[in-house]
Amino acid sequence: MAFKSDIEIAREANKKPIQAIGDVLGIPSEHLLPYGHDKAKVSQSFIDSVQGRPDGKLILVTAINPTPAGEGKTTTTVGLGDGLNKIGKKAVICIREASLGPNFGMKGGAAGGGKAQVVPMEEMNLHFTGDFHAITSAHSLLSAMIDNHIYWGNALDIDQRRVVWRRVVDMNDRSLRQITSSLGGVANGFPREDGFDITVASEVMAILCLAKNLKDLEKRLGDMIVAYRRDKTPVFCRDIKAEGAMTVLLKDAMQPNLVQTLENNPAFVHGGPFANIAHGCNSVIATTTALKLADYVVTEAGFGADLGAEKFMDIKCRKAGLKPAAVVIVATVRAMKMNGGVAKADLGAENVDAVKAGCANLGRHIENMKKFGVPAVVGINHFFTDTDAEVQAIKDYCAGLGVDAILNTHWAEGGAGITETAKKVVELCEAGSADYRPLYGDELSLAEKIETVCKEIYRADSVTMDGSVRAQLKAWEEQGYGKLPVCMAKTQYSFTTDPNRRGAPTGFSIPVREVRLSAGAGFVVVVCGEIMTMPGLPRVPAAETIRLNEDGLIEGLF
Amino acid sequence: MAFKSDIEIAREANKKPIQAIGDVLGIPSEHLLPYGHDKAKVSQSFIDSVQGRPDGKLILVTAINPTPAGEGKTTTTVGLGDGLNKIGKKAVICIREASLGPNFGMKGGAAGGGKAQVVPMEEMNLHFTGDFHAITSAHSLLSAMIDNHIYWGNALDIDQRRVVWRRVVDMNDRSLRQITSSLGGVANGFPREDGFDITVASEVMAILCLAKNLKDLEKRLGDMIVAYRRDKTPVFCRDIKAEGAMTVLLKDAMQPNLVQTLENNPAFVHGGPFANIAHGCNSVIATTTALKLADYVVTEAGFGADLGAEKFMDIKCRKAGLKPAAVVIVATVRAMKMNGGVAKADLGAENVDAVKAGCANLGRHIENMKKFGVPAVVGINHFFTDTDAEVQAIKDYCAGLGVDAILNTHWAEGGAGITETAKKVVELCEAGSADYRPLYGDELSLAEKIETVCKEIYRADSVTMDGSVRAQLKAWEEQGYGKLPVCMAKTQYSFTTDPNRRGAPTGFSIPVREVRLSAGAGFVVVVCGEIMTMPGLPRVPAAETIRLNEDGLIEGLF
Repeated sequence: MAFKSDIEIAREANKKPIQAIGDVLGIPSEHLLPYGHDKAKVSQSFIDSVQGRPDGKLILVTAINPTPAGEGKTTTTVGLGDGLNKIGKKAVICIREASLGPNFGMKGGAAGGGKAQVVPMEEMNLHFTGDFHAITSAHSLLSAMIDNHIYWGNALDIDQRRVVWRRVVDMNDRSLRQITSSLGGVANGFPREDGFDITVASEVMAILCLAKNLKDLEKRLGDMIVAYRRDKTPVFCRDIKAEGAMTVLLKDAMQPNLVQTLENNPAFVHGGPFANIAHGCNSVIATTTALKLADYVVTEAGFGADLGAEKFMDIKCRKAGLKPAAVVIVATVRAMKMNGGVAKADLGAENVDAVKAGCANLGRHIENMKKFGVPAVVGINHFFTDTDAEVQAIKDYCAGLGVDAILNTHWAEGGAGITETAKKVVELCEAGSADYRPLYGDELSLAEKIETVCKEIYRADSVTMDGSVRAQLKAWEEQGYGKLPVCMAKTQYSFTTDPNRRGAPTGFSIPVREVRLSAGAGFVVVVCGEIMTMPGLPRVPAAETIRLNEDGLIEGLF
Repeated sequence: MAFKSDIEIAREANKKPIQAIGDVLGIPSEHLLPYGHDKAKVSQSFIDSVQGRPDGKLILVTAINPTPAGEGKTTTTVGLGDGLNKIGKKAVICIREASLGPNFGMKGGAAGGGKAQVVPMEEMNLHFTGDFHAITSAHSLLSAMIDNHIYWGNALDIDQRRVVWRRVVDMNDRSLRQITSSLGGVANGFPREDGFDITVASEVMAILCLAKNLKDLEKRLGDMIVAYRRDKTPVFCRDIKAEGAMTVLLKDAMQPNLVQTLENNPAFVHGGPFANIAHGCNSVIATTTALKLADYVVTEAGFGADLGAEKFMDIKCRKAGLKPAAVVIVATVRAMKMNGGVAKADLGAENVDAVKAGCANLGRHIENMKKFGVPAVVGINHFFTDTDAEVQAIKDYCAGLGVDAILNTHWAEGGAGITETAKKVVELCEAGSADYRPLYGDELSLAEKIETVCKEIYRADSVTMDGSVRAQLKAWEEQGYGKLPVCMAKTQYSFTTDPNRRGAPTGFSIPVREVRLSAGAGFVVVVCGEIMTMPGLPRVPAAETIRLNEDGLIEGLF
């Protein structure tokens, strides 16, 4: 079979002028700030003006543990938005922005795929509306101001060995992971160890995505811990007096970006925090704005449901006061087979038994969603090699758990291929059976919160932490950070910390290696394994073949 | 007297929608890509479509050597554009973009001042349309690809000690001037010395401002020298295969930005290379596009005429095939007094003798402009403390040199305050007396070119260079770079290399400390004194008081 590539389909899109998309949502032109003819930001004053309206229904799209076979979570998110519009509902999609740097290592990602995409795809993978550049600038300003403070006398008594505010750049650059800065003599400051992360790993990114408004953004930026003194007391961003200027730099970046699907339905694409050391969801301001403008808002969270949905529920919804009405869990026949033990090379052959075995992974995610009090439906993302018997095996398995599993063909057919799921989602939303609750209460200790997630969601037998980790958690509780939720940083490929253990493993322990406090974002990061915050480029980076062709089109990016 | 500040005046502007400004220039809406409602980029296909048209007249605004008293070169540029429109001519202004980083050190600069400004002022001092962010990204990509090449085996045999491609960030960050990178073990590469410059010092910036189109941009990027081997042979950007991806990152940044003056006249604000290690002019593509769309194009060059106008003539015009029709040399009574030996504190008192003495500085610039074959007029930028006798002294002095000097009040009155100069400029242009020629021919040796500028423009008795500098110039000539123009990096405050020697000094020598090859931009940088390519923040950075106020307005930036 010859398929068109995502970029070929995207380039054939009949895009409407962005104001026409704004018109659908009732956004007047003076409040829709265009970036070219197909992207726009929504003004803060318009957002302020709709606060009195009732909220639409919030639908989370999540997935089984990802496998190399792919699941199509974003594709389903986009398709479901189109499908809801197709059945006559007013629906908006909310997804994350892509990071620029990684596209020059491996080929870039689409926003969705096939006939379920958000456009303009190329801009969204490059500078888009400049949000990430603004985050890099704000982060870099604080970096410069910290060293400048030390240079001019260090009145705050910062211990140069304990500056925890690393630098960022939106590029895969391993050579900046660890550096010595301020070399070259008196005029350049006091030499110290430092390093760069990629921009999406910045706490500024997490904050931008959790802040309710610019006031809240400024407050949270001020709350960030940037360094410690020799007596280990924290030095805050507000001690450096950087949060006001950072807010000015982030003023436009805080406004949600409006684009459209291939079917000309509205999509907010805004924010993109890491899904490991941060919560991996699009911005709160985009989601809450969308809820005021549409009856149904479809959003997604990073990684599989054990990480993404858990953080969506326990961090984003808890903090933003959101109450999701339904969850769609994306699964594929191929991924079920891999979870059932089939190697990637053998995915082409029918194997109903492997599908059945792999369903244990899906089943655990279904159970987990019930713990948040939100009804779920399984969306099977169709692939052309799937057999009827394999699809039926998933449906039967889900029926046994009292959950519908519906085959979707939005990749090939757009919104028309996912109307059955759309109708089911509407049914779940309108039945009012959702009774959202976070997994754990604020009042639990930080260690208890970690144990709750590990046991209830991952099904670990136990959690191991060094005494130093427990002491650190205790110290933060004493400093008033005990009420924060935890943000788990763990492999996305397994319920365990071993990426090779697929399916529904039991009999394992979760080792906590390290904990970090994101005091501005408002969570404690729990690192359970190697976490890379600055990727490197491969031996032959995609950049080597990216270029403009004779027609001015970008080649090599996708 | 109580004056309104520039920002107060800018905020009161009756801005027209940017499409209305585009309409004046005949740019259809599909070719004018908006960034908000008051900024836009002009599409490449529109630019291509107007290439067959005749060119308008190009007018350069330059100045005496700057003093702490200020001259108002940009203010005059903007005012003259408004003045030309006021007398019924179709005129466009072309100026440079501001760098974001420095605004967080000292308070930011307006684009012009008083009633002669370009708006939106705040956006132009922050992210604007993202051009500088794109330059930072493209530069950073090449940086990452160089170290990545070394990491994966160094097939090009790069000498790690001779990587000349430094990194950049658009922030005043002295602690990054000199670093050691790739620390932390095998996974992070081979440790080496490195450092960051501010983005405007990037050769990518100079190239973006000299490239005729995207094809030329890509070729020039490929020509850049990024490192040397142990045998001192150069490694080019194209050896790293980065120029295609860099061009993709710079695709939108290459398109000129259209904004407007307070009087709703069109202004292109595009590009902003350093005026010391680079040529300090707005982009060639903006200037050449403006010449196709208007009868008169008013532009400026960085620093005083000894540096700015010389580089405009010898680098920008030579390379882009531009033929300026007239020059306006900006002077002020106060600056004449300082050139005449008066201290800044004493500028308030009338001092006709000091004005007369200081005119020697102006006179030398007038003479210099004649060497380029372009007729000049002196624009006296009025300040409220100026006395009639002082103004008359300048007029009389200029009359003695056969040049008109006209008092302009555009700062207080906008275009209406500069119509006499506008008429004079039209007269000079229409008389057709301009016969532009660069100061020196391509065929002179690099050392001869340096000597020509130093003797003809600065009036130095001699030039001193170490044998190593002469040997380097010779080596470049042998490698085929002998035909390049030279780009002088010298203090802007004096014809000499001593910033305190104002007026028209004689009896001095110019010492060349160092030479650098910008092989992509296409010039040899001649460093005559300390050149800072990464500024630091002051003890109390402006950033500490920059914030959004309760009305959402930016405070502290201006």
